[in-house]
Amino acid sequence: MTNGFLEAIDVISKQGITVEYPKHFVLQKRGKQADKFWILRKGLVRYFYQWQEKEFSGWFDMENDIVGSVYSIVGMGPAKETIQLLENSELIEINLEKCHHKIPEFESFKIELLQYYFLELENRIKFFQCLDGKERYHYLLENKPQLVQRVPLRLLASFLGLTPESFSRIRKKIT
Amino acid sequence: MTNGFLEAIDVISKQGITVEYPKHFVLQKRGKQADKFWILRKGLVRYFYQWQEKEFSGWFDMENDIVGSVYSIVGMGPAKETIQLLENSELIEINLEKCHHKIPEFESFKIELLQYYFLELENRIKFFQCLDGKERYHYLLENKPQLVQRVPLRLLASFLGLTPESFSRIRKKIT
Repeated sequence: MTNGFLEAIDVISKQGITVEYPKHFVLQKRGKQADKFWILRKGLVRYFYQWQEKEFSGWFDMENDIVGSVYSIVGMGPAKETIQLLENSELIEINLEKCHHKIPEFESFKIELLQYYFLELENRIKFFQCLDGKERYHYLLENKPQLVQRVPLRLLASFLGLTPESFSRIRKKIT
Repeated sequence: MTNGFLEAIDVISKQGITVEYPKHFVLQKRGKQADKFWILRKGLVRYFYQWQEKEFSGWFDMENDIVGSVYSIVGMGPAKETIQLLENSELIEINLEKCHHKIPEFESFKIELLQYYFLELENRIKFFQCLDGKERYHYLLENKPQLVQRVPLRLLASFLGLTPESFSRIRKKIT
Protein backbone atom coordinates (compact mmCIF):
# COMPACT_ATOMS: atom_id res chain seq x y z
CA MET A 1 0.00 0.00 0.00
CA THR A 2 1.30 3.47 -0.88
CA ASN A 3 1.46 6.31 1.65
CA GLY A 4 -1.29 8.12 -0.24
CA PHE A 5 -3.51 5.04 0.05
CA LEU A 6 -2.87 4.71 3.80
CA GLU A 7 -3.57 8.43 4.34
CA ALA A 8 -6.82 8.15 2.36
CA ILE A 9 -7.87 5.15 4.47
CA ASP A 10 -7.15 7.21 7.58
CA VAL A 11 -9.29 10.16 6.40
CA ILE A 12 -12.11 7.89 5.20
CA SER A 13 -12.17 5.73 8.33
CA LYS A 14 -12.86 8.90 10.37
CA GLN A 15 -16.26 9.04 8.61
CA GLY A 16 -17.10 5.63 10.02
CA ILE A 17 -18.57 4.37 13.25
CA THR A 18 -17.40 1.44 15.34
CA VAL A 19 -19.80 -1.50 15.26
CA GLU A 20 -19.88 -5.01 16.64
CA TYR A 21 -21.59 -7.90 14.86
CA PRO A 22 -21.89 -11.54 15.91
CA LYS A 23 -20.41 -14.62 14.22
CA HIS A 24 -22.45 -15.64 11.10
CA PHE A 25 -23.63 -12.05 10.52
CA VAL A 26 -23.85 -11.22 6.78
CA LEU A 27 -22.20 -7.89 5.95
CA GLN A 28 -22.85 -8.00 2.21
CA LYS A 29 -25.13 -10.16 0.10
CA ARG A 30 -24.12 -11.36 -3.37
CA GLY A 31 -26.22 -9.59 -6.03
CA LYS A 32 -26.80 -6.44 -3.97
CA GLN A 33 -25.12 -3.09 -4.58
CA ALA A 34 -22.67 -2.25 -1.79
CA ASP A 35 -23.71 0.74 0.30
CA LYS A 36 -21.11 0.23 3.01
CA PHE A 37 -17.61 -1.05 3.52
CA TRP A 38 -15.59 -1.76 6.65
CA ILE A 39 -12.18 -1.83 8.26
CA LEU A 40 -11.84 -4.91 10.42
CA ARG A 41 -10.54 -4.12 13.90
CA LYS A 42 -11.03 -7.57 15.42
CA GLY A 43 -12.49 -10.75 13.97
CA LEU A 44 -12.51 -12.88 10.84
CA VAL A 45 -14.43 -12.51 7.58
CA ARG A 46 -15.19 -14.91 4.73
CA TYR A 47 -16.05 -14.08 1.10
CA PHE A 48 -17.89 -16.80 -0.80
CA TYR A 49 -19.49 -17.26 -4.20
CA GLN A 50 -21.44 -19.93 -6.06
CA TRP A 51 -20.50 -21.82 -9.22
CA GLN A 52 -22.99 -24.34 -10.60
CA GLU A 53 -24.82 -24.48 -7.26
CA LYS A 54 -21.65 -25.24 -5.33
CA GLU A 55 -20.25 -22.80 -2.79
CA PHE A 56 -16.60 -21.68 -2.90
CA SER A 57 -14.63 -19.70 -0.30
CA GLY A 58 -12.84 -17.02 -2.29
CA TRP A 59 -11.12 -14.97 0.36
CA PHE A 60 -10.69 -14.26 4.08
CA ASP A 61 -10.00 -10.96 5.83
CA MET A 62 -8.33 -10.55 9.20
CA GLU A 63 -7.48 -7.65 11.54
CA ASN A 64 -6.82 -4.28 9.77
CA ASP A 65 -8.00 -5.51 6.37
CA ILE A 66 -10.47 -3.48 4.30
CA VAL A 67 -13.70 -5.47 4.06
CA GLY A 68 -16.27 -5.12 1.28
CA SER A 69 -17.00 -5.87 -2.34
CA VAL A 70 -14.27 -3.98 -4.23
CA TYR A 71 -16.18 -4.70 -7.44
CA SER A 72 -19.23 -2.91 -6.07
CA ILE A 73 -17.41 -0.14 -4.14
CA VAL A 74 -15.66 1.10 -7.30
CA GLY A 75 -19.00 1.19 -9.15
CA MET A 76 -18.76 -1.90 -11.38
CA GLY A 77 -22.09 -3.36 -10.25
CA PRO A 78 -23.72 -5.47 -7.52
CA ALA A 79 -21.46 -7.56 -5.28
CA LYS A 80 -20.40 -10.90 -6.72
CA GLU A 81 -19.67 -12.49 -3.35
CA THR A 82 -21.44 -12.82 -0.03
CA ILE A 83 -19.39 -11.52 2.90
CA GLN A 84 -19.99 -13.15 6.27
CA LEU A 85 -18.38 -13.06 9.71
CA LEU A 86 -16.68 -16.24 10.93
CA GLU A 87 -16.11 -14.78 14.42
CA ASN A 88 -17.75 -12.12 16.60
CA SER A 89 -16.17 -9.01 15.12
CA GLU A 90 -15.51 -5.33 15.71
CA LEU A 91 -15.39 -3.13 12.62
CA ILE A 92 -15.35 0.47 11.49
CA GLU A 93 -18.41 0.79 9.28
CA ILE A 94 -18.27 3.39 6.52
CA ASN A 95 -21.30 4.50 4.56
CA LEU A 96 -20.47 4.94 0.86
CA GLU A 97 -23.04 7.75 0.63
CA LYS A 98 -20.81 9.80 2.94
CA CYS A 99 -17.78 9.30 0.67
CA HIS A 100 -18.93 9.68 -2.96
CA HIS A 101 -18.40 13.31 -4.10
CA LYS A 102 -17.94 14.33 -0.47
CA ILE A 103 -14.44 13.18 0.48
CA PRO A 104 -11.88 14.49 -2.06
CA GLU A 105 -9.56 11.57 -1.31
CA PHE A 106 -12.25 9.01 -2.18
CA GLU A 107 -11.77 9.04 -5.97
CA SER A 108 -8.07 8.22 -5.74
CA PHE A 109 -8.83 5.77 -2.92
CA LYS A 110 -11.09 3.78 -5.28
CA ILE A 111 -8.36 3.59 -7.94
CA GLU A 112 -5.74 2.52 -5.40
CA LEU A 113 -8.15 -0.06 -3.98
CA LEU A 114 -8.64 -1.48 -7.46
CA GLN A 115 -4.89 -1.54 -8.07
CA TYR A 116 -4.19 -3.18 -4.72
CA TYR A 117 -6.67 -6.00 -5.37
CA PHE A 118 -5.55 -6.33 -8.99
CA LEU A 119 -2.18 -7.37 -7.55
CA GLU A 120 -3.81 -9.66 -4.97
CA LEU A 121 -5.83 -11.38 -7.71
CA GLU A 122 -2.71 -11.87 -9.84
CA ASN A 123 -0.97 -13.45 -6.86
CA ARG A 124 -3.93 -15.73 -6.24
CA ILE A 125 -3.84 -16.92 -9.87
CA LYS A 126 -0.14 -17.76 -9.48
CA PHE A 127 -1.00 -19.58 -6.24
CA PHE A 128 -3.33 -21.86 -8.22
CA GLN A 129 -1.32 -22.11 -11.43
CA CYS A 130 2.18 -22.67 -10.00
CA LEU A 131 1.54 -24.71 -6.85
CA ASP A 132 -0.04 -28.13 -6.33
CA GLY A 133 -2.42 -28.74 -3.42
CA LYS A 134 0.29 -29.66 -0.94
CA GLU A 135 2.43 -26.66 -1.89
CA ARG A 136 -0.58 -24.35 -1.53
CA TYR A 137 -1.20 -25.60 2.01
CA HIS A 138 2.49 -25.12 2.88
CA TYR A 139 2.38 -21.61 1.45
CA LEU A 140 -0.60 -20.79 3.67
CA LEU A 141 1.03 -22.33 6.75
CA GLU A 142 4.10 -20.15 6.20
CA ASN A 143 2.46 -16.93 5.07
CA LYS A 144 -0.92 -16.88 6.79
CA PRO A 145 -0.64 -19.26 9.77
CA GLN A 146 -3.47 -17.45 11.59
CA LEU A 147 -5.90 -18.40 8.82
CA VAL A 148 -5.00 -22.07 9.24
CA GLN A 149 -5.66 -21.82 12.98
CA ARG A 150 -8.91 -19.88 12.81
CA VAL A 151 -10.76 -20.99 9.65
CA PRO A 152 -12.83 -24.23 9.73
CA LEU A 153 -11.16 -27.01 7.72
CA ARG A 154 -13.89 -27.48 5.10
CA LEU A 155 -13.75 -23.75 4.24
CA LEU A 156 -9.96 -23.85 4.11
CA ALA A 157 -10.12 -26.82 1.71
CA SER A 158 -12.42 -24.85 -0.60
CA PHE A 159 -10.12 -21.80 -0.43
CA LEU A 160 -7.19 -24.03 -1.44
CA GLY A 161 -9.16 -25.48 -4.36
CA LEU A 162 -9.17 -28.96 -2.79
CA THR A 163 -11.86 -31.48 -1.89
CA PRO A 164 -12.18 -32.05 1.89
CA GLU A 165 -10.84 -35.61 1.28
CA SER A 166 -7.64 -34.63 -0.51
CA PHE A 167 -7.06 -31.81 2.00
CA SER A 168 -7.40 -34.32 4.81
CA ARG A 169 -4.83 -36.62 3.10
CA ILE A 170 -2.37 -33.73 2.73
CA ARG A 171 -2.76 -32.75 6.38
CA LYS A 172 -2.24 -36.33 7.61
CA LYS A 173 1.04 -36.64 5.71
CA ILE A 174 2.37 -33.49 7.39
CA THR A 175 1.45 -34.26 11.02
CA MET B 1 -16.73 -3.33 -22.23
CA THR B 2 -18.77 -0.15 -21.78
CA ASN B 3 -19.52 2.23 -24.68
CA GLY B 4 -17.26 4.85 -23.07
CA PHE B 5 -14.41 2.34 -22.99
CA LEU B 6 -14.90 1.38 -26.64
CA GLU B 7 -15.03 5.06 -27.67
CA ALA B 8 -11.84 5.77 -25.71
CA ILE B 9 -10.11 2.83 -27.44
CA ASP B 10 -11.22 4.27 -30.78
CA VAL B 11 -9.80 7.74 -30.00
CA ILE B 12 -6.57 6.33 -28.56
CA SER B 13 -5.99 3.86 -31.39
CA LYS B 14 -5.98 6.81 -33.84
CA GLN B 15 -2.72 7.93 -32.14
CA GLY B 16 -1.13 4.64 -33.12
CA ILE B 17 0.64 3.35 -36.19
CA THR B 18 0.18 -0.02 -37.88
CA VAL B 19 3.17 -2.32 -37.45
CA GLU B 20 4.03 -5.89 -38.38
CA TYR B 21 6.30 -8.07 -36.27
CA PRO B 22 7.42 -11.66 -36.84
CA LYS B 23 6.64 -14.76 -34.75
CA HIS B 24 8.80 -14.90 -31.56
CA PHE B 25 9.15 -11.09 -31.45
CA VAL B 26 9.12 -9.76 -27.86
CA LEU B 27 6.76 -6.80 -27.44
CA GLN B 28 7.37 -6.28 -23.73
CA LYS B 29 10.02 -7.59 -21.39
CA ARG B 30 9.26 -8.52 -17.79
CA GLY B 31 10.88 -6.01 -15.39
CA LYS B 32 10.77 -3.11 -17.85
CA GLN B 33 8.39 -0.15 -17.64
CA ALA B 34 5.86 -0.25 -20.49
CA ASP B 35 6.24 2.62 -22.94
CA LYS B 36 3.86 1.18 -25.54
CA PHE B 37 0.74 -0.90 -25.86
CA TRP B 38 -1.03 -2.43 -28.83
CA ILE B 39 -4.30 -3.45 -30.36
CA LEU B 40 -3.93 -6.78 -32.11
CA ARG B 41 -5.32 -6.75 -35.64
CA LYS B 42 -4.05 -10.17 -36.70
CA GLY B 43 -1.96 -12.73 -34.89
CA LEU B 44 -1.50 -14.38 -31.53
CA VAL B 45 0.24 -13.19 -28.36
CA ARG B 46 1.46 -14.98 -25.24
CA TYR B 47 2.07 -13.53 -21.76
CA PHE B 48 4.42 -15.52 -19.55
CA TYR B 49 6.05 -15.17 -16.16
CA GLN B 50 8.51 -17.10 -14.01
CA TRP B 51 7.95 -18.72 -10.62
CA GLN B 52 10.92 -20.42 -8.96
CA GLU B 53 12.77 -20.60 -12.29
CA LYS B 54 9.87 -22.29 -14.06
CA GLU B 55 8.00 -20.54 -16.87
CA PHE B 56 4.19 -20.24 -16.85
CA SER B 57 1.88 -19.08 -19.64
CA GLY B 58 -0.48 -16.65 -17.99
CA TRP B 59 -2.57 -15.36 -20.86
CA PHE B 60 -3.08 -15.27 -24.63
CA ASP B 61 -4.45 -12.44 -26.76
CA MET B 62 -6.11 -12.84 -30.13
CA GLU B 63 -7.53 -10.54 -32.81
CA ASN B 64 -8.95 -7.20 -31.49
CA ASP B 65 -7.59 -7.69 -27.96
CA ILE B 66 -5.67 -4.92 -26.21
CA VAL B 67 -2.09 -6.10 -25.76
CA GLY B 68 0.28 -4.83 -23.08
CA SER B 69 1.12 -4.93 -19.39
CA VAL B 70 -1.98 -3.48 -17.73
CA TYR B 71 -0.02 -3.34 -14.48
CA SER B 72 2.59 -1.11 -16.11
CA ILE B 73 0.24 0.92 -18.36
CA VAL B 74 -1.79 2.13 -15.36
CA GLY B 75 1.41 3.19 -13.57
CA MET B 76 1.81 0.45 -10.97
CA GLY B 77 5.41 -0.37 -11.94
CA PRO B 78 7.49 -2.40 -14.40
CA ALA B 79 5.79 -5.21 -16.34
CA LYS B 80 5.46 -8.50 -14.47
CA GLU B 81 5.16 -10.62 -17.60
CA THR B 82 7.01 -10.96 -20.87
CA ILE B 83 4.77 -10.54 -23.91
CA GLN B 84 5.78 -12.41 -27.06
CA LEU B 85 4.24 -13.12 -30.47
CA LEU B 86 3.30 -16.72 -31.24
CA GLU B 87 2.46 -15.88 -34.88
CA ASN B 88 3.51 -13.23 -37.42
CA SER B 89 1.26 -10.39 -36.31
CA GLU B 90 -0.17 -7.05 -37.35
CA LEU B 91 -0.82 -4.55 -34.57
CA ILE B 92 -1.67 -0.93 -33.91
CA GLU B 93 1.20 0.34 -31.79
CA ILE B 94 0.45 3.17 -29.38
CA ASN B 95 3.12 5.17 -27.63
CA LEU B 96 2.16 5.88 -24.00
CA GLU B 97 4.05 9.21 -24.18
CA LYS B 98 1.46 10.39 -26.69
CA CYS B 99 -1.41 9.52 -24.33
CA HIS B 100 -0.44 10.61 -20.79
CA HIS B 101 -1.78 14.14 -20.13
CA LYS B 102 -2.40 14.56 -23.85
CA ILE B 103 -5.54 12.56 -24.59
CA PRO B 104 -8.36 13.57 -22.19
CA GLU B 105 -9.96 10.14 -22.54
CA PHE B 106 -6.78 8.38 -21.38
CA GLU B 107 -7.31 8.79 -17.62
CA SER B 108 -10.74 7.15 -17.69
CA PHE B 109 -9.41 4.57 -20.19
CA LYS B 110 -6.80 3.45 -17.64
CA ILE B 111 -9.47 3.00 -14.94
CA GLU B 112 -11.76 1.08 -17.29
CA LEU B 113 -8.81 -1.07 -18.40
CA LEU B 114 -8.07 -1.90 -14.77
CA GLN B 115 -11.74 -2.70 -14.10
CA TYR B 116 -12.00 -4.88 -17.20
CA TYR B 117 -8.96 -6.96 -16.24
CA PHE B 118 -10.03 -7.07 -12.58
CA LEU B 119 -13.07 -9.00 -13.83
CA GLU B 120 -10.94 -11.18 -16.14
CA LEU B 121 -8.62 -12.05 -13.22
CA GLU B 122 -11.59 -12.94 -10.99
CA ASN B 123 -12.89 -15.25 -13.73
CA ARG B 124 -9.49 -16.87 -14.11
CA ILE B 125 -9.37 -17.57 -10.35
CA LYS B 126 -12.79 -19.24 -10.58
CA PHE B 127 -11.51 -21.23 -13.57
CA PHE B 128 -8.76 -22.68 -11.36
CA GLN B 129 -10.72 -22.95 -8.11
CA CYS B 130 -13.97 -24.44 -9.41
CA LEU B 131 -12.87 -26.67 -12.29
CA ASP B 132 -10.57 -29.69 -12.37
CA GLY B 133 -8.07 -30.12 -15.23
CA LYS B 134 -10.48 -31.94 -17.53
CA GLU B 135 -13.24 -29.37 -16.95
CA ARG B 136 -10.79 -26.53 -17.63
CA TYR B 137 -9.88 -28.06 -21.00
CA HIS B 138 -13.57 -28.51 -21.86
CA TYR B 139 -14.24 -24.92 -20.90
CA LEU B 140 -11.48 -23.74 -23.25
CA LEU B 141 -12.70 -25.98 -26.08
CA GLU B 142 -16.17 -24.50 -25.77
CA ASN B 143 -15.30 -20.87 -25.08
CA LYS B 144 -11.97 -20.29 -26.83
CA PRO B 145 -11.68 -23.02 -29.49
CA GLN B 146 -9.29 -20.89 -31.55
CA LEU B 147 -6.75 -20.92 -28.72
CA VAL B 148 -6.83 -24.72 -28.67
CA GLN B 149 -6.19 -24.80 -32.42
CA ARG B 150 -3.45 -22.19 -32.55
CA VAL B 151 -1.45 -22.45 -29.30
CA PRO B 152 1.28 -25.13 -29.00
CA LEU B 153 0.23 -27.94 -26.63
CA ARG B 154 2.97 -27.47 -24.01
CA LEU B 155 1.99 -23.79 -23.63
CA LEU B 156 -1.68 -24.70 -23.44
CA ALA B 157 -0.90 -27.24 -20.67
CA SER B 158 0.87 -24.52 -18.67
CA PHE B 159 -2.05 -22.10 -19.18
CA LEU B 160 -4.42 -24.78 -17.86
CA GLY B 161 -2.23 -25.37 -14.81
CA LEU B 162 -1.44 -28.93 -15.93
CA THR B 163 1.76 -30.90 -16.54
CA PRO B 164 2.27 -31.87 -20.21
CA GLU B 165 1.72 -35.52 -19.13
CA SER B 166 -1.64 -35.03 -17.45
CA PHE B 167 -2.78 -32.75 -20.28
CA SER B 168 -1.87 -35.49 -22.75
CA ARG B 169 -3.90 -38.06 -20.74
CA ILE B 170 -6.92 -35.75 -20.69
CA ARG B 171 -6.72 -35.18 -24.46
CA LYS B 172 -6.41 -38.92 -25.18
CA LYS B 173 -9.58 -39.67 -23.22
CA ILE B 174 -11.55 -37.14 -25.27
CA THR B 175 -10.42 -38.10 -28.78
